[in-house]
Amino acid sequence: MNFHQVAGVLRGMSERLPGYKGLALKVLLDVGAEIGDLMRITKGSVVFEGILIPRSEYSDDRHIVIKNRSGYNVGIEITPETRVERIGAEMKPTFIPPPPPEQKPGLPRVTILSTGGTIASRVDYRTGAVRPVISASDLYSIVPELADIAVIDAEILFSVFSEDLTPKHWSAMAEAVARHIVGGAQGVVIAHGTDTMGYSAAALSFALQSLPVPVILVGAQKSEDRPSSDAAMNLIGAVLAASKAPFAEVAVAMHETPSDESVVLHRGTKVRKCHTSRRDAFKTINAKPLARVMNNEIIMLTDDYKPRNPERKITLKANFDERAALIKFYPGMNPKIIDWHVSEGYRGIVLEGTGLGHVRRECFPAIRRAIESGVIVGMTSQCIWGRVNMNVYSNGRDLLAMGVIPLGDMLAETALVKMMWCLAQSSDPEEVKRLLLTNVADEFSSRSVETIEAPKTIVSS
Amino acid sequence: MNFHQVAGVLRGMSERLPGYKGLALKVLLDVGAEIGDLMRITKGSVVFEGILIPRSEYSDDRHIVIKNRSGYNVGIEITPETRVERIGAEMKPTFIPPPPPEQKPGLPRVTILSTGGTIASRVDYRTGAVRPVISASDLYSIVPELADIAVIDAEILFSVFSEDLTPKHWSAMAEAVARHIVGGAQGVVIAHGTDTMGYSAAALSFALQSLPVPVILVGAQKSEDRPSSDAAMNLIGAVLAASKAPFAEVAVAMHETPSDESVVLHRGTKVRKCHTSRRDAFKTINAKPLARVMNNEIIMLTDDYKPRNPERKITLKANFDERAALIKFYPGMNPKIIDWHVSEGYRGIVLEGTGLGHVRRECFPAIRRAIESGVIVGMTSQCIWGRVNMNVYSNGRDLLAMGVIPLGDMLAETALVKMMWCLAQSSDPEEVKRLLLTNVADEFSSRSVETIEAPKTIVSS
Repeated sequence: MNFHQVAGVLRGMSERLPGYKGLALKVLLDVGAEIGDLMRITKGSVVFEGILIPRSEYSDDRHIVIKNRSGYNVGIEITPETRVERIGAEMKPTFIPPPPPEQKPGLPRVTILSTGGTIASRVDYRTGAVRPVISASDLYSIVPELADIAVIDAEILFSVFSEDLTPKHWSAMAEAVARHIVGGAQGVVIAHGTDTMGYSAAALSFALQSLPVPVILVGAQKSEDRPSSDAAMNLIGAVLAASKAPFAEVAVAMHETPSDESVVLHRGTKVRKCHTSRRDAFKTINAKPLARVMNNEIIMLTDDYKPRNPERKITLKANFDERAALIKFYPGMNPKIIDWHVSEGYRGIVLEGTGLGHVRRECFPAIRRAIESGVIVGMTSQCIWGRVNMNVYSNGRDLLAMGVIPLGDMLAETALVKMMWCLAQSSDPEEVKRLLLTNVADEFSSRSVETIEAPKTIVSS
Repeated sequence: MNFHQVAGVLRGMSERLPGYKGLALKVLLDVGAEIGDLMRITKGSVVFEGILIPRSEYSDDRHIVIKNRSGYNVGIEITPETRVERIGAEMKPTFIPPPPPEQKPGLPRVTILSTGGTIASRVDYRTGAVRPVISASDLYSIVPELADIAVIDAEILFSVFSEDLTPKHWSAMAEAVARHIVGGAQGVVIAHGTDTMGYSAAALSFALQSLPVPVILVGAQKSEDRPSSDAAMNLIGAVLAASKAPFAEVAVAMHETPSDESVVLHRGTKVRKCHTSRRDAFKTINAKPLARVMNNEIIMLTDDYKPRNPERKITLKANFDERAALIKFYPGMNPKIIDWHVSEGYRGIVLEGTGLGHVRRECFPAIRRAIESGVIVGMTSQCIWGRVNMNVYSNGRDLLAMGVIPLGDMLAETALVKMMWCLAQSSDPEEVKRLLLTNVADEFSSRSVETIEAPKTIVSS
């Protein structure tokens, strides 16, 4: 037995039933169940059927978790009236990919880098885990349309949920993109979990300068083996953009509306996930999106973009300094939160203030102390839309006078990423401040463009 | 001389020129300027004219600040080529309110409580400060339409920028509302700064239970003495709603669109400031707004509301426990931030996670420690729209297994306010958790209602 198995036995867990303990373990052992078996669990008149999946080390001992036919995991509490049956042996995944179509010569070369997340994964029915499926032939098999668009080169960079990605992963992504572009890729697609795809898109926008070809991040809001997934359409849109879009920038490709009409390309510094589950969750904020993909055509939505130019040499500035924090202000916020960050050695703080860029006066002495100890403090707004203007009210003017840097219409998330990036570019605070206020990758809108969210209401009862 | 005057002299400041020091003070003394004087400042071919206003104690010594004709403050740096002239003596406010119209008998009695902010203020040209103007006769003078709607009773509660309001102010507001309702008000309006009006609206929604009449918060995005202010129309809409709306709930009254067509009434727990400066900055999230005020009529937009009933007895639960924090997660966030809050004695933490309710696994041990020390940890989403669902991915399931409480479609800001309120209602953690998950004031949407922000784009060049 290895260490984990020993530890499992010590914690009363079965190797065949990882994560289960106590009552739940006993009930499952009684019926001879193993992970992957088809189970029927009856509570009064309610019947659950599905495949037994493992639990985590943090689980309680009262629930059994099965994956139902729709692919959702259901946790069922064991009560005295619960009946547990094993009705079938371990299920194998039913999907066997067809053989990949032949690659067509003469098409552009596009690299797909996989980082994890819903889009690049299939749920493994045996373990309940998300499993990356991204060899080039996997992709052609699952989305055969890709073979008509590009010759795909695929590489798994990592396989993590996007909330677990860190600035170090951003650097690795940027380096891999640069390597593939130098190697001749005519466009790069990055399959990415949607949770933090906006942050990564901003990071790559700063790290990859003087891009010769487009770099397109793409995600999915439902995993590819669920009914009505958006993964294939988003991926086709992303590969189309990578292979033939006229711009050479970092963008995010996702559904434009809840229907399957179009994929929209958002500029990497201006995009934000604005819905937990809808396909059109990503929105461009304070700007117009770059382009739309519809009927296999790319329609530019702005004239203001950096054109593709394969002759251009890429400049890689892939470092980020993690000693930067995002602090969202709220009424009554304790100023000691700011002092704590200073004492922990943070070099930059992005405040997500209220309205035009405010925090309570109680925080002013702590902000002043932070600035006096050399910490760069920037201001953004939790309103999301609009821009900070710290000249209107005296609280804002006082913050400006202390040296707080107003970050215009930059998204708070983009501002944090930019702070981490600027801090890694220079150790001179004046240079960091200058860079922060320089429009590096259209993170500041050059014109007054505003996106309104009109209150269209859908009632689905 | 009082203490502040002595301190001013010691810091080299003039009593007649508060906030000015060093070079700026010298230049102003040289031309005999005083606060309130009309100044002309010339830099090359650029000429600034406006009224000299004071600076704050945090100011530098190189800028002179004047308020220009449009009411905006402009800071002008003194350089060798800057010419400073005093071209007029101290300006008095030019606006002299007309005599108030007569009060009409038989109209409903409405109380207006003023807390500060743009709506309840006029900029004092002499000091640059925001000055509350809210005796009943002030109001009738400035907005004479009110006299046709209601008999107004006005009280100044406080006069602070809303970012400086704390949970203690929420308690004071709730108590004042209850006092006026018990005293016979048929509706209450609260004039409030817009920055944290959403938080206060949520707080009052929890604190004021079993309301007999409506309580309407109202703000303005431009101060009333600027051209094209939204203050008067919002105030008229709020007083109309307070005097005759059929619901008895806490709501926010603001412009529905950038034009002056309608005022919309947002439910207090579902409203958020979503733009730094637009008149239609406030949006109802994950629900439909309560009602619309148009052509002096109130049109209900939902059937699902608590009806007005003057016989009902109000229940006041006005306490909030400030030992609750909102922590917005970002990639690479240091788990020690969570530990710090625990060590500082916080009793509740609302996480603003990614997507369906996630944070990185690195934070799990700290979250577990927090929960084990009795801290209540709730999860919301930084997506803003949609609802957390922590059963879909293993990171979410592990957080649930640790005891993190999924807060559905509640706004992060509302969740923080509710956490503070729940903690003040009970010292029993189980009761606090039960309350957190109870739908107290429609903070959870009862049906699946989703508001989309359609990307309507306005380009104003």
